[in-house]
Amino acid sequence: MVDNEYYSQAVHGPYESFNIGDLVLEEGGTIRNCQIAYASFGTLSAAKDNAILVPTWFSGTSKIMEQAYIGPGRALDPEKYFIVVANQIGNGLSTSPHNTAWPLGMANFPKVRIGDDVVAQQRLLKGRFGIETLALVVGGSMGAQQTYEWAVRFPDAVKRAAPIAGTAKNTPHDFLYAQSLCDAITSDPAWAGGWYREPHAVREGLRRHSRLWAVMGFSTEFYKQELWRPFGFSSVDDLMLNFLDATFLPMDPNDLLCMAWKWQRGDVSRHTGGDLAKALARITAKTVVMPISTDMFFPPADCAAEQRLIPKGELKVIDSLWGHIALFGLDAGYIEQVDRALKQLLDTPA
Amino acid sequence: MVDNEYYSQAVHGPYESFNIGDLVLEEGGTIRNCQIAYASFGTLSAAKDNAILVPTWFSGTSKIMEQAYIGPGRALDPEKYFIVVANQIGNGLSTSPHNTAWPLGMANFPKVRIGDDVVAQQRLLKGRFGIETLALVVGGSMGAQQTYEWAVRFPDAVKRAAPIAGTAKNTPHDFLYAQSLCDAITSDPAWAGGWYREPHAVREGLRRHSRLWAVMGFSTEFYKQELWRPFGFSSVDDLMLNFLDATFLPMDPNDLLCMAWKWQRGDVSRHTGGDLAKALARITAKTVVMPISTDMFFPPADCAAEQRLIPKGELKVIDSLWGHIALFGLDAGYIEQVDRALKQLLDTPA
Repeated sequence: MVDNEYYSQAVHGPYESFNIGDLVLEEGGTIRNCQIAYASFGTLSAAKDNAILVPTWFSGTSKIMEQAYIGPGRALDPEKYFIVVANQIGNGLSTSPHNTAWPLGMANFPKVRIGDDVVAQQRLLKGRFGIETLALVVGGSMGAQQTYEWAVRFPDAVKRAAPIAGTAKNTPHDFLYAQSLCDAITSDPAWAGGWYREPHAVREGLRRHSRLWAVMGFSTEFYKQELWRPFGFSSVDDLMLNFLDATFLPMDPNDLLCMAWKWQRGDVSRHTGGDLAKALARITAKTVVMPISTDMFFPPADCAAEQRLIPKGELKVIDSLWGHIALFGLDAGYIEQVDRALKQLLDTPA
Repeated sequence: MVDNEYYSQAVHGPYESFNIGDLVLEEGGTIRNCQIAYASFGTLSAAKDNAILVPTWFSGTSKIMEQAYIGPGRALDPEKYFIVVANQIGNGLSTSPHNTAWPLGMANFPKVRIGDDVVAQQRLLKGRFGIETLALVVGGSMGAQQTYEWAVRFPDAVKRAAPIAGTAKNTPHDFLYAQSLCDAITSDPAWAGGWYREPHAVREGLRRHSRLWAVMGFSTEFYKQELWRPFGFSSVDDLMLNFLDATFLPMDPNDLLCMAWKWQRGDVSRHTGGDLAKALARITAKTVVMPISTDMFFPPADCAAEQRLIPKGELKVIDSLWGHIALFGLDAGYIEQVDRALKQLLDTPA
């Protein structure tokens, strides 16, 4: 356990926590008294038929999802829906390597899979709110991985699904990219095999990690057109320092590694002996697959190939020059397109 | 100076070396008795009008250019043309950080620019062969940067130009990618500020560097379709180890850093006060701009934007799923398209 002020109500609140009990993991470990941190918005209808689940992406928490995607008049409108944002295991708010007591946390934290998160989220929704069906599951990146896992694992529980900028089965290329992020962190001597004692000791490794987001996270056109300029950054260096480093350097290295391991191995075909077509054919949800046009992590072609295997799947490529990081919602055009697509999906009877 | 058996006639030969004298560099340093290593193929005509110059890419030497691009029946046919492959400064065969005597080499090696290479190559061609005009300059990646520099700096000397998978002015995005390669090397404690004493001490940094090529160098489709399989690799891990690591780990870290610094700053608009359109308008050569369809370093859109500024510029996108590394010539379809385009260009009167 290491004390890191970044993972606090002051920075990410308000959020609550729910104890889902012991979670036996797919890889064989057990998280005892697993806590899922969540934030909820709006009111659950008496029929419990207006619930929306939003899982989180790599490094993200319920806060960024709230800020970028939720609000009155938006597709995810708390005046119409009851929206639960569930923080993934390892993200620093839910049970994570950095907040698990010695000797079970940090480098000893067990390996977690996307499927474990989805099982944990089902327990949260049922145990805390009595929710058994979801009007919509929507998430970006690792949130899309969880969305796909929900739709394949619990098809009856998911009426609609909207995986944004993510895949049902991670590609070998994206595995390698995530590995480069891990290597950037673990190669820092201050990482010390995961047993650093000071929360921000691994700053050089985290900085290299953040700079790999700079390479793969935006598009060449984003930089050429200096689309960062309206946001008050004075140069690319300033963007690196005050956006990417500022985003990633406060985080816990073991937490990031826990999530990256999960991200690398996201694969719904684990339910069908490796047959992806068979797994995606299980989905009964009306599904809108939304890649981002310039995404280098999950290029539209990779997402379209999966969409074609989903019975009620539809493809909506979101045009943005912000690459994968469009997810953060700073590109107004991106937000407008996503909101329109989600509203349309929510208005479709399911 | 460090003794590295990789940079030898046994590995890269046969090649010769020419002393171009003292080279005063754009950044202010001087390389004394600068040696340009080169390999030549074919016979120079009496009129000296059949010369082709091939500069090298980052980490490459004359050997890979010979193996991938030169041969009887090919576009670069030694039976018709006199072909000179000039090794760039810093590539380990020409004057480079690792082969310059203490205290002037290694981390003290002066900063070199693409323009310095082109001036050095002009001296080589004139001094060694009396060549003043070139039927063609063709190169890939950093070889394309040198090709553009030739065409802008010495328009009268270049009849035809074929920049493959490279740009005239490097993009901010590509600068960041090259920086991630540098950081991978310099973050290895064994790098020791550039003063390692054992040639292969920096193996972990070089391995991380090589794995970033894995991320940006191929395409997602390359990995999904396992296009590496016909080449005898048994898995992606085997490809990493026996292709990428085997390629990069024998190299000298300071040499790679010297080339990367140059690569980051390639920019023909230095000749025209930063005005790229004005610089490219200087080109009188018939120019075929050849991006690779899946290249993440130099996407077709970046290359096409420059091609439109070249008076006699034409765009030929080379279709390949091999990404930037298609340059190595292992994709037969790539080679076929490049050869066809170069033959057509060479057959065009200029």
